[in-house]
Amino acid sequence: MKPYSELSREELLTCKEELDKQYQEAQSKGLSLNMSRGKPEKGQLDMGMGLMSVLGEDCDMKSEDGTDCRNYGELDGIMEAKVLMAGIMGVRDPKDVIVFGNGSLSTMYDAVCRSYTTGVLGCTPWCRLDQVKFLCPVPGYDRHFAITEHFGIEMINIPMTEKGPDMDLVEKYVSEDASVKGIWCVPKYSNPQGISYSDETVRRFAALKPAAEDFRIYWDNAYAVHHLYEEDQDEILDILSECEKAGHPDMVYVFGSTSKISMAGAGIAAMAASQRNLESIKKSIAIRTICYDKINQLRHARYFNSMEAVKAHMKKHADILRPKFEAVLDVLERELGGLGIGNWVRPKGGYFITFEAMEGCAKNIVRKCKEAGVTLTGAGAPFPYGKDPHDSVIRIAPSFPAREELAQATDLFVLCVKLASIEKLLEG
Amino acid sequence: MKPYSELSREELLTCKEELDKQYQEAQSKGLSLNMSRGKPEKGQLDMGMGLMSVLGEDCDMKSEDGTDCRNYGELDGIMEAKVLMAGIMGVRDPKDVIVFGNGSLSTMYDAVCRSYTTGVLGCTPWCRLDQVKFLCPVPGYDRHFAITEHFGIEMINIPMTEKGPDMDLVEKYVSEDASVKGIWCVPKYSNPQGISYSDETVRRFAALKPAAEDFRIYWDNAYAVHHLYEEDQDEILDILSECEKAGHPDMVYVFGSTSKISMAGAGIAAMAASQRNLESIKKSIAIRTICYDKINQLRHARYFNSMEAVKAHMKKHADILRPKFEAVLDVLERELGGLGIGNWVRPKGGYFITFEAMEGCAKNIVRKCKEAGVTLTGAGAPFPYGKDPHDSVIRIAPSFPAREELAQATDLFVLCVKLASIEKLLEG
Repeated sequence: MKPYSELSREELLTCKEELDKQYQEAQSKGLSLNMSRGKPEKGQLDMGMGLMSVLGEDCDMKSEDGTDCRNYGELDGIMEAKVLMAGIMGVRDPKDVIVFGNGSLSTMYDAVCRSYTTGVLGCTPWCRLDQVKFLCPVPGYDRHFAITEHFGIEMINIPMTEKGPDMDLVEKYVSEDASVKGIWCVPKYSNPQGISYSDETVRRFAALKPAAEDFRIYWDNAYAVHHLYEEDQDEILDILSECEKAGHPDMVYVFGSTSKISMAGAGIAAMAASQRNLESIKKSIAIRTICYDKINQLRHARYFNSMEAVKAHMKKHADILRPKFEAVLDVLERELGGLGIGNWVRPKGGYFITFEAMEGCAKNIVRKCKEAGVTLTGAGAPFPYGKDPHDSVIRIAPSFPAREELAQATDLFVLCVKLASIEKLLEG
Repeated sequence: MKPYSELSREELLTCKEELDKQYQEAQSKGLSLNMSRGKPEKGQLDMGMGLMSVLGEDCDMKSEDGTDCRNYGELDGIMEAKVLMAGIMGVRDPKDVIVFGNGSLSTMYDAVCRSYTTGVLGCTPWCRLDQVKFLCPVPGYDRHFAITEHFGIEMINIPMTEKGPDMDLVEKYVSEDASVKGIWCVPKYSNPQGISYSDETVRRFAALKPAAEDFRIYWDNAYAVHHLYEEDQDEILDILSECEKAGHPDMVYVFGSTSKISMAGAGIAAMAASQRNLESIKKSIAIRTICYDKINQLRHARYFNSMEAVKAHMKKHADILRPKFEAVLDVLERELGGLGIGNWVRPKGGYFITFEAMEGCAKNIVRKCKEAGVTLTGAGAPFPYGKDPHDSVIRIAPSFPAREELAQATDLFVLCVKLASIEKLLEG
């Protein structure tokens, strides 16, 4: 079929008539499907059930160094859990890691909160400053943006390229504006686009010369081992080592978790940083907690006792997720290919597919889907303040629904894309 | 023996000579004992090992309402965990409970931190105020005081009586000073004295008329089921119900955890409050986390499936702890009874014994113990800023050391009490 932009008004109207009929039929089906949630499906959780029997009633509950994991102590985590999390996050030295509780989101929130209340390494706490800004590569992760918004931090959109954030812009802001205190990054299989930062991008990050002493890169390596294909995987440079080499060892906080490896919400989270950062962070978290859950750390470290074990486990996840991603992508290509009314990338990992509609169409598409029983992530969600400047980005989360549901939902989605695009073209 | 105060200078010197000899002998033994840590001993942790097999590899991981506890969701916890924690905290309605992560300390820290960064129910965030004060019943829990100190909150000592904090003073401060935003309470088997608040005290708390709208009682019911004796147990009134009855439903936050019931550091924590408070808190924690560890909640709820199960379990704890408390108390009574150089109370629950030495002796006693190989909690620790105005309170933690070690350590302790007291009397 021809691109929609080349259709005459007549042709568009004819096309719309047919699509309207299809949409009414779809509505009459009473669908109730959800492609909004980036959460694992049951099969993926079943795979982790081995975790439940790693620590039995008669089990030795000591960590390798003899610590009784059932008692208080070991604020920064047991060493074998540090080793596991360093491996997952791609950080060289486990000593640069603190293991936290059950989720990396709270680890990131606390990092921002500490900076807000106490300040970074002796700098003025952000709550005492008139202006604090964060750079936000867009589209990005809505929960990152919710944290910075919560603390009244001004967010600046940085467009993503296929190599990562627009580094010219990042360099300009970071070096010129001392109120820019951080940037949110998902460097591998980014949320939502699935883009991995190129080596050049990572090196340019490490070489940043911030105007603010307390500027930090918030490097959320959330999908570090979440490949979809065995033979075609992205790898990124270790930002902590790169920052060290570039003479800026304190400039980055690395985050990670096993939430989408073991159990969503019952995994372990971690943070890696320079020793100078870690010492300061440990002093602060010692006020907040006596220790994190070392039993869950021990459980994870024993179950995932090598990076090979992690990789083998993630391959099983990929075997569930890959067909779901492909089901969605196949429909997109079959139904929308060549129409010129949207772009998407085939991600090689992560949890999302990003669909970029014609400008001004995203909200309409999401609403149409909703009204026919398919819930998508709200248009605008992947942007600070929920505002997509072009109203074009839609995040699709294929992980949770069953494959058949996914096919149904995607059929409806492409129908809504076509309809919304025609409506837009008829307007113009 | 006569009270030391009635001894002549000569008698004191003779006595000191003998005690010095004993002290030198003790020092030569090369002891290395620790009575500073309020943590469970191995036997208590062994008792909880049943928890490890509650959830096996083939187990159904759904909560009673069908939620898959392995996935994201249920921000405020699963209902059966709320029921368990309401029972433990002595709160009437499980719907008034949020279940958090692995420790109540972080739950309390976050409550203060939220007030500092975001404010309480629309009130000005404390970080924007010139002065914020907390009332601190003393002696009290050092980690409470560390939280308020961390946020630059001015702490005001409130003397403890045998019925709880001096309520005349509490009422005066709370009603007259709008910068008083909170009070730290351990209402049952208080840390460190083991005092339980009388019904009158609880009712006077509920009847407080704060000058500050955002004043809250931080009610840390840490030792709610931690009795030492089966036949002689303290019970306290439910502060949440009392506040409701008194027309101040929003005035209290209740905290609790299973840290000293199941596993120290790997339990579950909870907070109870009015629905109005909870709604506001949930909005805030939704920014910080997707959910807490529901698998550990499920594990606890299934293992402790009734309050009878909790009580039976705590009775086993008491059987380990009681002889330890008595070993210490027996030595105190045998060696110091009638000497007029110290007071102590026989606690009926909790984790500590408080020894009140002659004014100006606590630091000296702790130092002498240290120099002979016995570590005690630092003198001053149970006071804001680590400053005991009378230098007299020493917190003894009998739970962790083995019973024989405890006897040795207490023998040394009483020796040091005698020596320090004589030194003080000779000075005077």
